[in-house]
Amino acid sequence: MLAAIVRDGDRDLVAIEEPLEIRVDGAPLAVTMRTPGHDEELALGFLLGEGLIDGPRGAGPTLDFAANVVEVAGPLLRDPGGRRFYTTSSCGVCGKGALQEVAVHAPRLADGPAIDRDVLASLPDRLRQPGFERTGGLHATGLFRVSGELELVREDVGRHNAMDKVIGSALLQGRLPLADRALCVSGRLAFELVQKAAVAGAAILVGVGAPTSLAIELAHDRAMTLAGFARGGHVNVYTGPERVRR
Amino acid sequence: MLAAIVRDGDRDLVAIEEPLEIRVDGAPLAVTMRTPGHDEELALGFLLGEGLIDGPRGAGPTLDFAANVVEVAGPLLRDPGGRRFYTTSSCGVCGKGALQEVAVHAPRLADGPAIDRDVLASLPDRLRQPGFERTGGLHATGLFRVSGELELVREDVGRHNAMDKVIGSALLQGRLPLADRALCVSGRLAFELVQKAAVAGAAILVGVGAPTSLAIELAHDRAMTLAGFARGGHVNVYTGPERVRR
Repeated sequence: MLAAIVRDGDRDLVAIEEPLEIRVDGAPLAVTMRTPGHDEELALGFLLGEGLIDGPRGAGPTLDFAANVVEVAGPLLRDPGGRRFYTTSSCGVCGKGALQEVAVHAPRLADGPAIDRDVLASLPDRLRQPGFERTGGLHATGLFRVSGELELVREDVGRHNAMDKVIGSALLQGRLPLADRALCVSGRLAFELVQKAAVAGAAILVGVGAPTSLAIELAHDRAMTLAGFARGGHVNVYTGPERVRR
Repeated sequence: MLAAIVRDGDRDLVAIEEPLEIRVDGAPLAVTMRTPGHDEELALGFLLGEGLIDGPRGAGPTLDFAANVVEVAGPLLRDPGGRRFYTTSSCGVCGKGALQEVAVHAPRLADGPAIDRDVLASLPDRLRQPGFERTGGLHATGLFRVSGELELVREDVGRHNAMDKVIGSALLQGRLPLADRALCVSGRLAFELVQKAAVAGAAILVGVGAPTSLAIELAHDRAMTLAGFARGGHVNVYTGPERVRR
C-alpha cells in the first residue's frame, strides 16, 4: 500500500493511489481512485451501498493482473445508469429525498446491542492504522464487536473505499447485516459513510471527526447510533444514545 | 453553513450538508453533497475540472430557491456521458492513463513565481477557517498570492467542493489560469485535488496533510509545485522545489 519516494534527499513513504475500473458482466460501470488491495471487497461493498446488489457475487481480477480492473458477475438489481436525484415531489432535490432513497435499501434498525461509552470512545485507538502511522495518508475503517474487539480493518486513500472494503468483506463472509457490530472510521462522518453503514445494517458508527447535518439526520432516520469526536477518552453521541451505556 | 443540534442536552453546531443537482441547459448532469452557498461557483469549478467547459458560463439557481438546483448554460465541450477510464493501450486502466487525460486539459506549467519556504509553510495558518473552528467539520481551500496574502477562501463539507468553489470563483472573475498563485487545502492531497488545481493552471498547491503517490506523479508531470504536511513552520516539498526559496 506504500511507495517510496525521494524528497529533499531523504526517502519518504507515501500511500499508493491508482484507478480501479469496476466491470459487471464485462461492461465498465465505474472508475474509482483507490489504494490497491482487496479490490473484490471494494467492488462488492460499493455495489451494495449503491443498492445494485443485495448479496455476495463472484468477483475477481481480469487475467491481466496489472490492469486494475475487477470483474463482478451480474445481473444488477436495477439499471446502474439511473442517476440518483434525491428528489421529492414537494421541493426538488433535498435531504429528505436522500433519506427516502437510503430507506429503500436500509430497513430501520431494531433495538440493537449496547456498548459501553468508554469502549465506544476507545475504538479509534483500537483501530490500529499501520499505514497511517507511516504515511499520514491512509483512511481506515474497522469492524468491531461491542466488546471492543477489532475483527477487521481496511485502509485506503479514500475514506469511502475503506468502508466499502470492510462491508464487501463482511458480505463475502456472510456476516451482513452488521446489526450487532460497530463500525469505526478514522475521519469525519458525512452522509455517504452513514449511507453505506446503514445499508450494511450496522447498529453503531463512530468516527474521530465531526458528523454533518445530513449524516445525523440519516442516522436518526434509520435508528442508528452515530457518534463523533472519539478522542482521548471522550466521545459525542448524536443519535441512538439508548445503545450507549454510561 | 452551520446548523444547531441538541446533544446530551447541550447545543452543538454541525456543518450543513445537502444535495445539489447541477443541470446544463435544463438537463440533470450530476448530484453532489455539499454545504449550501456559492453553488454557481461550485458548478462551474466542477465542470472546468472535468474538462466540460473552458471559460465562464451563466449559472444560477432555479426560480425555486429551495430546490437545491443550479442551472448552467451549455453547450458543453464534450459529451458528459463519456466516462473516464484512464486507459492506455499497454496496460488497461492505470495511473499513466489518468495523467494523460489530465494533460489534455492542463498544459504543462512554465516556470512560475517563487515563494518563500516560510510563507509556504504558513499558508494553512493563514487560511483562517471560521467554520472548522466552530464545528471541526468543514474543509477549506484558499487562494493566495505568493506573498502569503489570502485572496479567497471557501469552505465545504467536501474537500473537492471547497476547491471547486475557489476555482469557479476565479473563473467567474476572469482570473484563470492561476499561474502566479498558490492554492492551500486543509486536508490531504489526493489525485483529484491536484487534477483540479492543474486544470486551473495553479503553480503551487500545498496541504496540511499527506499527498498520495498519484498526486505526486501528476504534479511532477504538470510541473506543479506540490507540498504537504505544512504545520508548525515545517513543510515537505514533493515536486517543483525550484519555486521554493529557502
